[in-house]
Amino acid sequence: YFVPQEQQHHQKQQQKFSSFDSPSQSQPGQLPPRIYVGYSVYKGKAALTVEPRPPEFLPLDSGAFKVSKEGYLLLQFAPSSGVRQYDWSRKQVFSLSVTEIGNLISLGAKDSCEFFHDPFKGKSDEGRVRKVLKVEPLPDGSGHFFNLSVQNKLINLDESIYIPITKAEFAVFISAFNYILPYLLGWHTFANSIKPEAESRANAKSGVEYEWNR
Amino acid sequence: YFVPQEQQHHQKQQQKFSSFDSPSQSQPGQLPPRIYVGYSVYKGKAALTVEPRPPEFLPLDSGAFKVSKEGYLLLQFAPSSGVRQYDWSRKQVFSLSVTEIGNLISLGAKDSCEFFHDPFKGKSDEGRVRKVLKVEPLPDGSGHFFNLSVQNKLINLDESIYIPITKAEFAVFISAFNYILPYLLGWHTFANSIKPEAESRANAKSGVEYEWNR
Amino acid sequence: YFVPQEQQHHQKQQQKFSSFDSPSQSQPGQLPPRIYVGYSVYKGKAALTVEPRPPEFLPLDSGAFKVSKEGYLLLQFAPSSGVRQYDWSRKQVFSLSVTEIGNLISLGAKDSCEFFHDPFKGKSDEGRVRKVLKVEPLPDGSGHFFNLSVQNKLINLDESIYIPITKAEFAVFISAFNYILPYLLGWHTFANSIKPEAESRANAKSGVEYEWNR
Amino acid sequence: YFVPQEQQHHQKQQQKFSSFDSPSQSQPGQLPPRIYVGYSVYKGKAALTVEPRPPEFLPLDSGAFKVSKEGYLLLQFAPSSGVRQYDWSRKQVFSLSVTEIGNLISLGAKDSCEFFHDPFKGKSDEGRVRKVLKVEPLPDGSGHFFNLSVQNKLINLDESIYIPITKAEFAVFISAFNYILPYLLGWHTFANSIKPEAESRANAKSGVEYEWNR
Repeated sequence: YFVPQEQQHHQKQQQKFSSFDSPSQSQPGQLPPRIYVGYSVYKGKAALTVEPRPPEFLPLDSGAFKVSKEGYLLLQFAPSSGVRQYDWSRKQVFSLSVTEIGNLISLGAKDSCEFFHDPFKGKSDEGRVRKVLKVEPLPDGSGHFFNLSVQNKLINLDESIYIPITKAEFAVFISAFNYILPYLLGWHTFANSIKPEAESRANAKSGVEYEWNR
Repeated sequence: YFVPQEQQHHQKQQQKFSSFDSPSQSQPGQLPPRIYVGYSVYKGKAALTVEPRPPEFLPLDSGAFKVSKEGYLLLQFAPSSGVRQYDWSRKQVFSLSVTEIGNLISLGAKDSCEFFHDPFKGKSDEGRVRKVLKVEPLPDGSGHFFNLSVQNKLINLDESIYIPITKAEFAVFISAFNYILPYLLGWHTFANSIKPEAESRANAKSGVEYEWNR
Repeated sequence: YFVPQEQQHHQKQQQKFSSFDSPSQSQPGQLPPRIYVGYSVYKGKAALTVEPRPPEFLPLDSGAFKVSKEGYLLLQFAPSSGVRQYDWSRKQVFSLSVTEIGNLISLGAKDSCEFFHDPFKGKSDEGRVRKVLKVEPLPDGSGHFFNLSVQNKLINLDESIYIPITKAEFAVFISAFNYILPYLLGWHTFANSIKPEAESRANAKSGVEYEWNR
Repeated sequence: YFVPQEQQHHQKQQQKFSSFDSPSQSQPGQLPPRIYVGYSVYKGKAALTVEPRPPEFLPLDSGAFKVSKEGYLLLQFAPSSGVRQYDWSRKQVFSLSVTEIGNLISLGAKDSCEFFHDPFKGKSDEGRVRKVLKVEPLPDGSGHFFNLSVQNKLINLDESIYIPITKAEFAVFISAFNYILPYLLGWHTFANSIKPEAESRANAKSGVEYEWNR
């Protein structure tokens, strides 16, 4: 459910994304329309929205494709600015890679994990921005908390956003993340290409690398 | 399997839904036909049917869509009115939100949970109707029971329906709920839109918000 | 992998099913071709093949459909008739309903379950045929065994087929059964019908039964 | 993410596979384009890439299809040849069958498993090549290691490649393997063929083998 303040967040999001929305959906053979999906948790001190981002593919000379960059989950944390109001202009974001998602979906009730990101790693501003996401059990065992700390020396920012997540909300994370993970790896494109007409014996043997040939 | 009395339940259901069935299925490009699906458990004292309800989408100016309202599971409880007969005219319903589904799918063998709903919350009749769904382990450890209590002061109703659910039936719930949860969030529309031709590098970079840009 | 004797089993199967294979696959808009899928385990004393069977749908006057009969898993047990040879002419079969599948997928390493079937229940030959499927842990904890006993007084048959299943093979069962269970309930037809163009707000509100209307 | 040395690996892969890439993707009704997908782990001593391979189908006289050979996962291990460099010319490969995947996805935190393969089993060079894949817990409980040993007497090779896999990376394996396993069995082709128009009662009864007919 979106109350007016949270809707503002998503309206601003939409303006950002307009450059790659498909212009029309009605002609046959068109790419499917862009869909914005996510799962949001709204608490007293902060809100957290999780949105999946797709993998990238590169076309090969042969007409085939390969996955060139895995998809990821974008986490957006916003501090509260009043009762049921959140200040998305002060949001902090954190990307979860496929392996980091693996870390979260295997987290036990009493486990913790921590991710360190430097968005400028390998570039000239390396070390100037430091992000730490901690996921730790709540003291009463009722769930986990997510805490994102951002130190940005470029703009003299030192911010920390904390949000408790109940066991039920975490179960939604795990179910949704488990569902989306193969899609972030692009494995669904392989899976959906398996059709009887395509995989009949005559085709399958040519050029494929088997264990038994080495 | 539907015995005649249970079939009555579903025939009445169908009359209710006729306003949004698609008029024909035979032309290409038509929306797919409406399908009524569920899972039902029939016990001595009561019957319980679980049916998924779809999320809602809003079109955006750009031609894209966003999810405006999450889907849910509608639970319908009917008391028994004789041997293998159920009185669906006295049924009580309860909606499970995505987060409440998260609660159920993470319930351990010895865990309980409880949900409180006021269907008129925020409206003038707030507090006049109170629904409580309890899910608790059966004393002999053979499963859980579901108990829905409804107090409706508007019509002077105080009803409670109790149904035991075996471990096997609960495992069907968990498998089906885990399957449908991403669809209730609309994440399948995102997942199914990931195609190599759509996600080639030239498109993906424009306008997308990355962690590394902030 | 199919060795010649096991292939015989599947060739005989194919002759049985020919009456509902689709006559051609090449015209657009045709129903997809029939596919025979399963998972087989071959042991010293017996072989076991598991094959899914689809649910049935009934068309409604409105043009919509409902699920009229759930799908199931057909288990086929054949005794060994020599080294790597199985006598499928003496096979015994057992159907697992959705709820019985729920029993199997929730079975712990040390758990057992038992299913009793009378194929002629409610008919004149009731009590003449009795099938019992037992699934119990192997003594050394390396897996479970499946034991199907059939007593058929009509043909004076008293047969029992036993096959051990390793933990790995059981994990394949659980993964495949968890995957197929929503399809046996027909929930995929609901899930696949959720499209943004179909679920825009104007359509969704008409006639739908919400919790909040009662 | 692919750094240049790892990209070399995949470019060589693509040349191998060119014989069955589809020549064009733009005409309607064409088979979908070939997609190369996988999941790779890069460590100090070695790299490991896991790629799914599709099942094979045989057409039957009736126009239906059956699965003739299950799909599998191809594991490719390459030793390190410098900092973030891997020598794919010295790679060793190992195929995981569906049942072996069942073994891995059911592996507990403290469990081990071991697979022995002779690629020439049943042929004249039987016993000349021996491959052993061991998966064992890391001493500190932080994950598992994969160790592939290959003894090839034909070319006087005795090589062993060891790679540690964190709990998070193993969780990605389990999520992706659980997703792909039904596709390797071809069960998705059965699942996707379940449509209301195809499964209406008139069709379903003809010739199908039910438990209740025996």
